[in-house]
Amino acid sequence: MRCFKATVEYDGTDFAGFQWQRGTRTVQGALEDAIQRRTGLIGRLTGAGRTDAGVHALGQVISFQAETQIPLERLAVALNSALPADVSVRRVEEVEETFNARFSASSRQYVYLILNRPAPSALLRRYSAFCAEPLDTEAMRVAAQYLLGEQDFAAFTNALKPSQMTQREVMRCQVGRYRSFVIVRIEANAFLRGMLRFLVGTLIEIGHGKRAPESVRALLLSGDRRQAGFTAPPQGLCLLKVRYGERKDYARPLRAAETSGGQETTEESL
Amino acid sequence: MRCFKATVEYDGTDFAGFQWQRGTRTVQGALEDAIQRRTGLIGRLTGAGRTDAGVHALGQVISFQAETQIPLERLAVALNSALPADVSVRRVEEVEETFNARFSASSRQYVYLILNRPAPSALLRRYSAFCAEPLDTEAMRVAAQYLLGEQDFAAFTNALKPSQMTQREVMRCQVGRYRSFVIVRIEANAFLRGMLRFLVGTLIEIGHGKRAPESVRALLLSGDRRQAGFTAPPQGLCLLKVRYGERKDYARPLRAAETSGGQETTEESL
Repeated sequence: MRCFKATVEYDGTDFAGFQWQRGTRTVQGALEDAIQRRTGLIGRLTGAGRTDAGVHALGQVISFQAETQIPLERLAVALNSALPADVSVRRVEEVEETFNARFSASSRQYVYLILNRPAPSALLRRYSAFCAEPLDTEAMRVAAQYLLGEQDFAAFTNALKPSQMTQREVMRCQVGRYRSFVIVRIEANAFLRGMLRFLVGTLIEIGHGKRAPESVRALLLSGDRRQAGFTAPPQGLCLLKVRYGERKDYARPLRAAETSGGQETTEESL
Repeated sequence: MRCFKATVEYDGTDFAGFQWQRGTRTVQGALEDAIQRRTGLIGRLTGAGRTDAGVHALGQVISFQAETQIPLERLAVALNSALPADVSVRRVEEVEETFNARFSASSRQYVYLILNRPAPSALLRRYSAFCAEPLDTEAMRVAAQYLLGEQDFAAFTNALKPSQMTQREVMRCQVGRYRSFVIVRIEANAFLRGMLRFLVGTLIEIGHGKRAPESVRALLLSGDRRQAGFTAPPQGLCLLKVRYGERKDYARPLRAAETSGGQETTEESL
Protein backbone atom coordinates (compact mmCIF):
# COMPACT_ATOMS: atom_id res chain seq x y z
CA MET A 1 0.00 0.00 0.00
CA ARG A 2 1.26 3.47 -0.88
CA CYS A 3 -0.06 6.82 0.36
CA PHE A 4 -0.41 9.81 -1.95
CA LYS A 5 -1.08 13.54 -1.81
CA ALA A 6 -2.32 15.11 -5.06
CA THR A 7 -2.92 18.73 -6.07
CA VAL A 8 -6.02 19.00 -8.22
CA GLU A 9 -7.53 21.66 -10.50
CA TYR A 10 -11.18 21.60 -11.55
CA ASP A 11 -13.89 23.57 -13.27
CA GLY A 12 -16.82 23.29 -10.88
CA THR A 13 -19.46 24.38 -13.41
CA ASP A 14 -20.75 20.93 -14.26
CA PHE A 15 -20.26 19.30 -10.86
CA ALA A 16 -22.71 19.05 -7.95
CA GLY A 17 -19.81 20.03 -5.65
CA PHE A 18 -16.71 18.24 -4.42
CA GLN A 19 -18.18 15.72 -2.04
CA TRP A 20 -19.32 12.31 -3.25
CA GLN A 21 -23.12 11.89 -3.53
CA ARG A 22 -24.94 8.92 -4.96
CA GLY A 23 -26.28 9.46 -8.48
CA THR A 24 -24.78 12.91 -9.09
CA ARG A 25 -21.62 14.05 -10.80
CA THR A 26 -19.12 15.13 -8.13
CA VAL A 27 -15.40 15.93 -8.23
CA GLN A 28 -14.66 13.30 -5.61
CA GLY A 29 -16.58 10.72 -7.65
CA ALA A 30 -14.68 11.59 -10.84
CA LEU A 31 -11.33 11.38 -9.02
CA GLU A 32 -12.16 8.08 -7.29
CA ASP A 33 -13.25 6.57 -10.63
CA ALA A 34 -9.99 7.62 -12.29
CA ILE A 35 -7.81 6.42 -9.39
CA GLN A 36 -9.70 3.11 -9.32
CA ARG A 37 -9.25 2.65 -13.08
CA ARG A 38 -5.49 3.31 -12.98
CA THR A 39 -4.58 1.82 -9.58
CA GLY A 40 -6.17 -0.19 -6.81
CA LEU A 41 -7.80 2.50 -4.69
CA ILE A 42 -8.09 1.53 -1.03
CA GLY A 43 -11.07 3.09 0.73
CA ARG A 44 -12.12 6.64 -0.13
CA LEU A 45 -10.08 9.72 -0.89
CA THR A 46 -10.10 12.77 1.39
CA GLY A 47 -10.25 16.37 0.15
CA ALA A 48 -8.96 19.44 1.99
CA GLY A 49 -12.01 21.56 1.12
CA ARG A 50 -15.56 20.50 0.37
CA THR A 51 -16.36 23.07 -2.29
CA ASP A 52 -19.99 23.77 -3.28
CA ALA A 53 -21.57 23.08 -6.66
CA GLY A 54 -20.15 25.53 -9.22
CA VAL A 55 -17.06 26.43 -7.14
CA HIS A 56 -13.68 25.90 -8.83
CA ALA A 57 -10.23 24.88 -7.64
CA LEU A 58 -6.70 25.55 -8.81
CA GLY A 59 -5.07 23.95 -5.78
CA GLN A 60 -7.44 21.51 -4.08
CA VAL A 61 -5.48 18.84 -2.22
CA ILE A 62 -6.55 15.22 -1.85
CA SER A 63 -5.03 12.25 -0.06
CA PHE A 64 -5.60 8.58 -0.87
CA GLN A 65 -4.14 5.11 -0.46
CA ALA A 66 -3.63 2.74 -3.36
CA GLU A 67 -1.97 -0.46 -4.52
CA THR A 68 0.01 0.37 -7.66
CA GLN A 69 3.34 -0.28 -9.36
CA ILE A 70 3.19 2.96 -11.38
CA PRO A 71 6.31 5.06 -10.66
CA LEU A 72 5.48 8.31 -8.87
CA GLU A 73 6.61 10.50 -11.79
CA ARG A 74 4.15 8.76 -14.16
CA LEU A 75 1.13 8.84 -11.86
CA ALA A 76 -0.21 12.34 -12.72
CA VAL A 77 -0.15 11.53 -16.45
CA ALA A 78 -1.83 8.16 -15.79
CA LEU A 79 -4.61 9.74 -13.74
CA ASN A 80 -5.13 12.60 -16.20
CA SER A 81 -5.60 10.08 -18.99
CA ALA A 82 -8.55 8.63 -17.03
CA LEU A 83 -10.07 11.94 -15.85
CA PRO A 84 -12.70 14.05 -17.65
CA ALA A 85 -11.40 17.32 -19.15
CA ASP A 86 -12.84 19.44 -16.32
CA VAL A 87 -10.61 17.84 -13.66
CA SER A 88 -6.81 17.72 -13.86
CA VAL A 89 -4.13 16.47 -11.52
CA ARG A 90 -1.33 19.02 -11.25
CA ARG A 91 1.07 17.14 -9.00
CA VAL A 92 1.32 13.88 -7.07
CA GLU A 93 3.58 13.26 -4.06
CA GLU A 94 4.12 10.14 -1.98
CA VAL A 95 3.48 10.81 1.71
CA GLU A 96 3.47 9.16 5.14
CA GLU A 97 0.42 7.17 6.15
CA THR A 98 -0.35 9.80 8.80
CA PHE A 99 -0.95 12.51 6.15
CA ASN A 100 -4.61 13.47 5.74
CA ALA A 101 -5.49 16.18 3.20
CA ARG A 102 -8.25 17.50 5.46
CA PHE A 103 -6.99 17.12 9.00
CA SER A 104 -3.30 17.83 8.34
CA ALA A 105 -4.09 21.16 6.62
CA SER A 106 -3.15 24.33 8.48
CA SER A 107 -5.05 26.71 6.19
CA ARG A 108 -7.16 27.05 3.05
CA GLN A 109 -6.83 30.03 0.73
CA TYR A 110 -9.65 31.04 -1.62
CA VAL A 111 -10.00 33.77 -4.21
CA TYR A 112 -13.30 35.34 -5.24
CA LEU A 113 -13.43 37.12 -8.60
CA ILE A 114 -16.00 39.86 -9.24
CA LEU A 115 -16.35 41.44 -12.68
CA ASN A 116 -17.28 45.05 -11.90
CA ARG A 117 -18.12 46.90 -15.11
CA PRO A 118 -21.30 47.79 -17.01
CA ALA A 119 -21.19 44.89 -19.51
CA PRO A 120 -21.09 41.21 -18.55
CA SER A 121 -18.30 39.01 -19.94
CA ALA A 122 -19.02 36.08 -22.25
CA LEU A 123 -15.57 34.58 -21.74
CA LEU A 124 -15.42 34.88 -17.95
CA ARG A 125 -19.05 34.18 -17.08
CA ARG A 126 -18.21 30.71 -15.71
CA TYR A 127 -15.33 31.98 -13.56
CA SER A 128 -16.53 35.25 -12.03
CA ALA A 129 -19.54 36.94 -10.46
CA PHE A 130 -20.88 39.97 -12.31
CA CYS A 131 -21.66 43.29 -10.57
CA ALA A 132 -22.65 46.10 -12.94
CA GLU A 133 -22.83 48.75 -10.16
CA PRO A 134 -19.47 50.20 -9.08
CA LEU A 135 -18.04 48.68 -5.88
CA ASP A 136 -16.33 50.86 -3.26
CA THR A 137 -13.26 48.74 -2.67
CA GLU A 138 -11.95 51.08 0.04
CA ALA A 139 -15.06 50.40 2.16
CA MET A 140 -14.68 46.68 1.46
CA ARG A 141 -11.03 46.86 2.60
CA VAL A 142 -12.00 48.52 5.88
CA ALA A 143 -14.65 45.86 6.49
CA ALA A 144 -12.18 43.07 5.66
CA GLN A 145 -9.97 44.12 8.57
CA TYR A 146 -12.74 43.30 11.07
CA LEU A 147 -12.81 39.73 9.81
CA LEU A 148 -9.18 39.00 10.69
CA GLY A 149 -8.20 36.94 13.71
CA GLU A 150 -9.75 34.12 15.70
CA GLN A 151 -13.45 34.88 16.10
CA ASP A 152 -16.87 33.28 16.25
CA PHE A 153 -18.24 33.15 12.69
CA ALA A 154 -21.68 31.75 13.60
CA ALA A 155 -23.32 34.67 11.76
CA PHE A 156 -21.68 33.45 8.53
CA THR A 157 -22.91 29.90 8.32
CA ASN A 158 -26.09 27.96 7.70
CA ALA A 159 -26.88 24.38 8.62
CA LEU A 160 -25.36 24.57 12.10
CA LYS A 161 -25.33 21.32 14.01
CA PRO A 162 -26.09 21.60 17.74
CA SER A 163 -22.96 22.28 19.80
CA GLN A 164 -20.86 22.81 16.66
CA MET A 165 -17.75 24.90 17.24
CA THR A 166 -17.97 28.10 15.19
CA GLN A 167 -14.59 29.65 16.07
CA ARG A 168 -12.37 30.05 13.04
CA GLU A 169 -9.16 31.96 12.45
CA VAL A 170 -8.96 34.20 9.39
CA MET A 171 -5.34 35.16 8.62
CA ARG A 172 -5.94 36.95 5.34
CA CYS A 173 -8.82 38.95 3.92
CA GLN A 174 -7.66 41.22 1.12
CA VAL A 175 -9.66 43.23 -1.38
CA GLY A 176 -7.89 44.35 -4.56
CA ARG A 177 -8.82 45.88 -7.87
CA TYR A 178 -7.24 44.94 -11.21
CA ARG A 179 -8.77 46.61 -14.26
CA SER A 180 -12.48 45.67 -14.23
CA PHE A 181 -12.01 43.04 -11.53
CA VAL A 182 -12.47 43.20 -7.79
CA ILE A 183 -10.56 40.32 -6.24
CA VAL A 184 -11.13 39.07 -2.69
CA ARG A 185 -8.57 36.71 -1.15
CA ILE A 186 -9.45 34.95 2.06
CA GLU A 187 -7.34 32.51 4.04
CA ALA A 188 -8.43 30.78 7.23
CA ASN A 189 -7.46 27.71 9.21
CA ALA A 190 -10.83 26.31 8.12
CA PHE A 191 -14.21 27.57 6.92
CA LEU A 192 -17.71 26.88 8.18
CA ARG A 193 -20.29 25.66 5.69
CA GLY A 194 -21.40 28.59 3.51
CA MET A 195 -18.98 30.97 5.28
CA LEU A 196 -16.99 32.09 2.24
CA ARG A 197 -20.00 33.02 0.13
CA PHE A 198 -21.73 34.78 3.06
CA LEU A 199 -18.54 36.75 3.76
CA VAL A 200 -18.20 37.81 0.13
CA GLY A 201 -21.93 38.62 -0.12
CA THR A 202 -21.59 40.86 2.95
CA LEU A 203 -18.49 42.55 1.48
CA ILE A 204 -20.35 43.18 -1.80
CA GLU A 205 -23.25 44.82 0.11
CA ILE A 206 -20.68 47.02 1.87
CA GLY A 207 -19.11 47.85 -1.51
CA HIS A 208 -22.54 48.92 -2.73
CA GLY A 209 -23.05 51.15 0.32
CA LYS A 210 -25.96 49.07 1.64
CA ARG A 211 -24.23 48.59 4.99
CA ALA A 212 -21.33 50.28 6.78
CA PRO A 213 -17.90 48.63 6.97
CA GLU A 214 -18.02 48.87 10.79
CA SER A 215 -21.30 46.90 10.86
CA VAL A 216 -19.25 43.71 10.42
CA ARG A 217 -18.13 43.97 14.05
CA ALA A 218 -21.69 43.95 15.42
CA LEU A 219 -22.61 41.23 12.94
CA LEU A 220 -19.86 38.94 14.25
CA LEU A 221 -20.92 39.62 17.85
CA SER A 222 -24.57 38.92 17.06
CA GLY A 223 -23.91 35.44 15.71
CA ASP A 224 -27.14 35.92 13.77
CA ARG A 225 -27.14 34.55 10.24
CA ARG A 226 -30.22 36.60 9.30
CA GLN A 227 -28.22 39.81 9.69
CA ALA A 228 -25.43 38.75 7.31
CA GLY A 229 -25.32 39.49 3.59
CA PHE A 230 -26.63 37.49 0.66
CA THR A 231 -24.96 34.34 -0.61
CA ALA A 232 -22.51 35.36 -3.33
CA PRO A 233 -22.85 33.12 -6.42
CA PRO A 234 -20.56 30.06 -6.56
CA GLN A 235 -18.86 30.65 -9.91
CA GLY A 236 -16.72 33.52 -8.57
CA LEU A 237 -15.10 31.31 -5.95
CA CYS A 238 -11.94 29.25 -6.41
CA LEU A 239 -9.89 27.22 -3.92
CA LEU A 240 -6.40 28.54 -4.61
CA LYS A 241 -4.14 26.64 -2.22
CA VAL A 242 -3.98 24.56 0.92
CA ARG A 243 -1.13 24.89 3.37
CA TYR A 244 0.32 22.12 5.54
CA GLY A 245 2.23 22.71 8.77
CA GLU A 246 3.63 26.08 7.79
CA ARG A 247 4.19 29.09 10.02
CA LYS A 248 1.09 31.26 10.33
CA ASP A 249 1.51 34.64 8.69
CA TYR A 250 -1.06 37.35 8.91
CA ALA A 251 -1.32 39.11 5.59
CA ARG A 252 -2.33 42.74 6.03
CA PRO A 253 -2.78 45.43 3.43
CA LEU A 254 0.48 47.39 3.23
CA ARG A 255 0.35 50.96 4.43
CA ALA A 256 2.87 53.58 3.39
CA ALA A 257 4.33 53.82 6.92
CA GLU A 258 4.85 50.07 7.05
CA THR A 259 6.60 49.57 3.76
CA SER A 260 10.01 50.91 4.78
CA GLY A 261 12.00 48.44 6.80
CA GLY A 262 9.07 46.14 7.44
CA GLN A 263 9.03 42.64 6.03
CA GLU A 264 6.45 42.06 3.40
CA THR A 265 4.40 38.93 3.88
CA THR A 266 4.78 36.24 1.26
CA GLU A 267 2.57 37.16 -1.65
CA GLU A 268 2.38 35.48 -4.99
CA SER A 269 0.47 37.07 -7.82
CA LEU A 270 -2.70 35.41 -9.09
CA MET B 1 -32.67 54.53 -39.81
CA ARG B 2 -29.58 54.62 -37.60
CA CYS B 3 -26.21 52.97 -38.21
CA PHE B 4 -24.26 51.28 -35.42
CA LYS B 5 -20.84 49.81 -34.71
CA ALA B 6 -20.67 47.37 -31.78
CA THR B 7 -17.74 45.66 -30.07
CA VAL B 8 -18.63 42.11 -29.13
CA GLU B 9 -17.14 39.42 -26.88
CA TYR B 10 -18.03 35.75 -27.22
CA ASP B 11 -17.15 32.29 -26.03
CA GLY B 12 -16.97 30.30 -29.27
CA THR B 13 -17.16 26.88 -27.61
CA ASP B 14 -20.83 26.25 -28.27
CA PHE B 15 -21.11 28.05 -31.62
CA ALA B 16 -20.65 26.67 -35.13
CA GLY B 17 -18.59 29.78 -35.90
CA PHE B 18 -19.41 33.43 -36.42
CA GLN B 19 -21.13 33.34 -39.80
CA TRP B 20 -24.87 32.72 -40.09
CA GLN B 21 -25.85 29.23 -41.28
CA ARG B 22 -29.33 27.82 -41.46
CA GLY B 23 -30.21 25.46 -38.63
CA THR B 24 -27.03 25.86 -36.59
CA ARG B 25 -26.15 28.06 -33.63
CA THR B 26 -23.90 30.87 -34.84
CA VAL B 27 -22.70 34.12 -33.24
CA GLN B 28 -24.16 36.16 -36.08
CA GLY B 29 -27.49 34.41 -35.65
CA ALA B 30 -27.55 35.07 -31.88
CA LEU B 31 -26.68 38.75 -32.43
CA GLU B 32 -29.25 39.25 -35.20
CA ASP B 33 -31.94 37.64 -33.01
CA ALA B 34 -31.13 39.96 -30.10
CA ILE B 35 -30.95 43.08 -32.28
CA GLN B 36 -34.24 42.13 -33.93
CA ARG B 37 -35.92 41.59 -30.56
CA ARG B 38 -34.80 44.95 -29.15
CA THR B 39 -34.86 47.12 -32.30
CA GLY B 40 -35.99 46.90 -35.90
CA LEU B 41 -32.97 45.36 -37.59
CA ILE B 42 -32.64 46.35 -41.24
CA GLY B 43 -30.97 43.72 -43.41
CA ARG B 44 -28.11 41.67 -42.00
CA LEU B 45 -25.26 42.61 -39.73
CA THR B 46 -21.64 42.52 -40.92
CA GLY B 47 -18.75 41.18 -38.83
CA ALA B 48 -15.09 42.17 -39.16
CA GLY B 49 -13.82 38.61 -38.83
CA ARG B 50 -15.51 35.32 -39.70
CA THR B 51 -14.15 33.23 -36.85
CA ASP B 52 -14.30 29.41 -37.02
CA ALA B 53 -16.32 27.14 -34.74
CA GLY B 54 -14.74 27.17 -31.27
CA VAL B 55 -12.78 30.40 -31.81
CA HIS B 56 -13.41 33.20 -29.27
CA ALA B 57 -13.51 36.98 -29.45
CA LEU B 58 -12.83 39.76 -26.98
CA GLY B 59 -13.08 42.50 -29.59
CA GLN B 60 -15.06 41.37 -32.63
CA VAL B 61 -16.65 44.36 -34.36
CA ILE B 62 -20.02 44.32 -36.09
CA SER B 63 -21.96 46.96 -38.01
CA PHE B 64 -25.72 47.04 -38.53
CA GLN B 65 -28.60 49.34 -39.38
CA ALA B 66 -31.75 49.56 -37.28
CA GLU B 67 -34.90 51.51 -36.56
CA THR B 68 -34.94 52.28 -32.85
CA GLN B 69 -35.70 55.05 -30.35
CA ILE B 70 -33.40 53.56 -27.68
CA PRO B 71 -30.81 56.15 -26.65
CA LEU B 72 -27.28 55.14 -27.62
CA GLU B 73 -26.11 54.84 -24.01
CA ARG B 74 -28.85 52.29 -23.22
CA LEU B 75 -28.37 50.13 -26.30
CA ALA B 76 -25.61 47.80 -25.00
CA VAL B 77 -27.64 46.99 -21.87
CA ALA B 78 -30.76 46.42 -24.00
CA LEU B 79 -28.94 44.05 -26.35
CA ASN B 80 -27.21 42.17 -23.51
CA SER B 81 -30.58 41.55 -21.89
CA ALA B 82 -31.64 39.70 -25.08
CA LEU B 83 -28.36 37.83 -25.71
CA PRO B 84 -27.36 34.40 -24.43
CA ALA B 85 -24.67 34.40 -21.70
CA ASP B 86 -21.91 33.36 -24.12
CA VAL B 87 -22.18 36.57 -26.19
CA SER B 88 -21.87 40.06 -24.72
CA VAL B 89 -21.86 43.51 -26.26
CA ARG B 90 -19.04 45.60 -24.79
CA ARG B 91 -19.70 48.91 -26.51
CA VAL B 92 -22.03 50.47 -29.08
CA GLU B 93 -21.27 53.58 -31.17
CA GLU B 94 -23.38 55.41 -33.72
CA VAL B 95 -21.58 55.70 -37.06
CA GLU B 96 -21.93 57.06 -40.59
CA GLU B 97 -23.81 54.97 -43.11
CA THR B 98 -20.56 54.39 -44.99
CA PHE B 99 -19.03 52.45 -42.07
CA ASN B 100 -18.76 48.71 -42.69
CA ALA B 101 -17.23 46.52 -39.97
CA ARG B 102 -15.61 44.29 -42.57
CA PHE B 103 -14.57 46.56 -45.41
CA SER B 104 -13.64 49.63 -43.33
CA ALA B 105 -11.25 47.61 -41.12
CA SER B 106 -7.54 48.27 -41.56
CA SER B 107 -6.37 45.29 -39.50
CA ARG B 108 -7.40 42.37 -37.32
CA GLN B 109 -5.39 41.30 -34.29
CA TYR B 110 -5.63 37.78 -32.88
CA VAL B 111 -4.04 36.07 -29.91
CA TYR B 112 -3.36 32.34 -29.66
CA LEU B 113 -2.87 30.84 -26.20
CA ILE B 114 -0.89 27.61 -25.75
CA LEU B 115 -0.65 25.96 -22.35
CA ASN B 116 2.85 24.46 -22.33
CA ARG B 117 3.36 22.32 -19.23
CA PRO B 118 3.11 18.61 -18.39
CA ALA B 119 -0.44 18.68 -16.94
CA PRO B 120 -3.52 19.93 -18.81
CA SER B 121 -5.67 22.65 -17.21
CA ALA B 122 -9.29 22.01 -16.23
CA LEU B 123 -10.07 25.72 -15.91
CA LEU B 124 -8.45 26.86 -19.18
CA ARG B 125 -9.27 23.90 -21.41
CA ARG B 126 -11.90 25.90 -23.32
CA TYR B 127 -9.60 28.87 -23.89
CA SER B 128 -6.21 27.42 -24.74
CA ALA B 129 -4.49 24.68 -26.71
CA PHE B 130 -2.48 22.19 -24.68
CA CYS B 131 1.11 21.17 -25.53
CA ALA B 132 2.76 18.92 -22.97
CA GLU B 133 6.15 18.91 -24.76
CA PRO B 134 8.33 22.01 -24.14
CA LEU B 135 8.21 24.59 -26.94
CA ASP B 136 11.37 26.40 -28.08
CA THR B 137 9.99 29.95 -28.15
CA GLU B 138 13.28 31.38 -29.45
CA ALA B 139 12.97 29.25 -32.61
CA MET B 140 9.32 30.29 -32.92
CA ARG B 141 10.35 33.96 -32.63
CA VAL B 142 12.89 33.60 -35.41
CA ALA B 143 10.28 31.94 -37.63
CA ALA B 144 7.73 34.64 -36.84
CA GLN B 145 10.00 37.29 -38.38
CA TYR B 146 9.75 35.61 -41.79
CA LEU B 147 5.98 36.03 -41.72
CA LEU B 148 6.08 39.83 -41.45
CA GLY B 149 5.32 42.08 -44.40
CA GLU B 150 3.21 41.87 -47.53
CA GLN B 151 3.56 38.38 -48.94
CA ASP B 152 1.69 35.62 -50.71
CA PHE B 153 0.17 33.35 -48.05
CA ALA B 154 -1.28 30.74 -50.45
CA ALA B 155 0.60 28.02 -48.53
CA PHE B 156 -1.43 28.91 -45.43
CA THR B 157 -4.97 28.53 -46.67
CA ASN B 158 -7.38 25.86 -47.78
CA ALA B 159 -10.50 26.21 -49.92
CA LEU B 160 -8.93 28.58 -52.41
CA LYS B 161 -11.27 29.93 -55.03
CA PRO B 162 -9.84 30.22 -58.56
CA SER B 163 -8.10 33.54 -59.13
CA GLN B 164 -8.42 34.49 -55.44
CA MET B 165 -5.87 37.04 -54.28
CA THR B 166 -3.64 35.51 -51.63
CA GLN B 167 -1.46 38.53 -50.80
CA ARG B 168 -1.85 39.63 -47.20
CA GLU B 169 0.15 42.00 -45.03
CA VAL B 170 1.21 40.79 -41.58
CA MET B 171 2.27 43.72 -39.35
CA ARG B 172 2.75 41.79 -36.14
CA CYS B 173 3.75 38.24 -35.28
CA GLN B 174 5.03 38.01 -31.73
CA VAL B 175 5.77 34.96 -29.62
CA GLY B 176 5.96 35.43 -25.85
CA ARG B 177 6.10 33.26 -22.77
CA TYR B 178 4.29 34.00 -19.51
CA ARG B 179 4.59 31.32 -16.84
CA SER B 180 3.25 28.11 -18.43
CA PHE B 181 1.79 29.94 -21.42
CA VAL B 182 3.18 30.54 -24.88
CA ILE B 183 1.28 33.43 -26.42
CA VAL B 184 1.27 34.20 -30.14
CA ARG B 185 -0.07 37.57 -31.30
CA ILE B 186 -0.70 38.08 -34.98
CA GLU B 187 -2.01 41.18 -36.71
CA ALA B 188 -2.65 41.49 -40.44
CA ASN B 189 -4.70 43.65 -42.74
CA ALA B 190 -6.83 40.55 -43.33
CA PHE B 191 -6.50 36.78 -43.08
CA LEU B 192 -7.16 34.04 -45.61
CA ARG B 193 -9.47 31.23 -44.63
CA GLY B 194 -7.65 28.88 -42.20
CA MET B 195 -4.52 31.08 -42.28
CA LEU B 196 -4.27 31.80 -38.55
CA ARG B 197 -4.53 28.18 -37.46
CA PHE B 198 -2.10 26.99 -40.18
CA LEU B 199 0.39 29.70 -39.14
CA VAL B 200 0.16 28.72 -35.46
CA GLY B 201 0.33 25.00 -36.30
CA THR B 202 3.51 25.67 -38.30
CA LEU B 203 5.00 27.73 -35.43
CA ILE B 204 4.20 24.91 -32.97
CA GLU B 205 6.00 22.37 -35.21
CA ILE B 206 8.99 24.75 -35.27
CA GLY B 207 8.78 25.04 -31.46
CA HIS B 208 8.93 21.25 -31.26
CA GLY B 209 12.00 21.11 -33.53
CA LYS B 210 10.13 19.29 -36.31
CA ARG B 211 11.06 21.96 -38.84
CA ALA B 212 13.64 24.76 -38.96
CA PRO B 213 12.61 28.40 -38.42
CA GLU B 214 14.13 29.31 -41.80
CA SER B 215 11.90 26.75 -43.56
CA VAL B 216 9.06 29.28 -43.38
CA ARG B 217 10.69 31.30 -46.15
CA ALA B 218 10.69 28.37 -48.60
CA LEU B 219 7.19 27.45 -47.51
CA LEU B 220 5.88 30.93 -48.36
CA LEU B 221 7.61 30.80 -51.75
CA SER B 222 6.22 27.34 -52.52
CA GLY B 223 2.59 28.40 -52.06
CA ASP B 224 1.95 24.74 -51.30
CA ARG B 225 -0.53 24.04 -48.54
CA ARG B 226 0.64 20.44 -48.17
CA GLN B 227 4.04 21.65 -46.93
CA ALA B 228 2.59 23.81 -44.12
CA GLY B 229 2.00 22.69 -40.55
CA PHE B 230 -1.05 21.11 -38.96
CA THR B 231 -4.20 23.05 -38.14
CA ALA B 232 -3.88 24.32 -34.56
CA PRO B 233 -7.07 23.66 -32.55
CA PRO B 234 -9.66 26.46 -32.51
CA GLN B 235 -10.07 26.95 -28.74
CA GLY B 236 -6.64 28.63 -28.39
CA LEU B 237 -7.58 31.40 -30.81
CA CYS B 238 -9.25 34.70 -29.89
CA LEU B 239 -10.01 37.80 -31.99
CA LEU B 240 -8.57 40.54 -29.79
CA LYS B 241 -9.22 43.75 -31.68
CA VAL B 242 -10.03 45.28 -35.03
CA ARG B 243 -8.51 48.58 -36.14
CA TYR B 244 -10.14 51.18 -38.37
CA GLY B 245 -8.26 53.72 -40.41
CA GLU B 246 -5.25 53.96 -38.16
CA ARG B 247 -1.64 54.39 -39.12
CA LYS B 248 0.11 51.08 -39.84
CA ASP B 249 2.72 50.23 -37.23
CA TYR B 250 4.99 47.26 -37.55
CA ALA B 251 5.43 45.65 -34.17
CA ARG B 252 8.83 44.02 -33.87
CA PRO B 253 10.40 42.26 -30.93
CA LEU B 254 12.48 44.86 -29.09
CA ARG B 255 16.23 44.31 -29.18
CA ALA B 256 18.59 45.82 -26.63
CA ALA B 257 20.19 48.11 -29.22
CA GLU B 258 16.81 49.44 -30.29
CA THR B 259 15.37 50.30 -26.91
CA SER B 260 17.31 53.53 -26.32
CA GLY B 261 15.91 56.46 -28.19
CA GLY B 262 13.61 54.40 -30.38
CA GLN B 263 9.85 54.82 -30.12
CA GLU B 264 8.08 51.80 -28.80
CA THR B 265 5.03 50.76 -30.75
CA THR B 266 1.71 50.96 -28.98
CA GLU B 267 1.30 47.81 -26.92
CA GLU B 268 -1.37 47.02 -24.43
CA SER B 269 -1.05 44.05 -22.14
CA LEU B 270 -3.42 41.11 -22.54
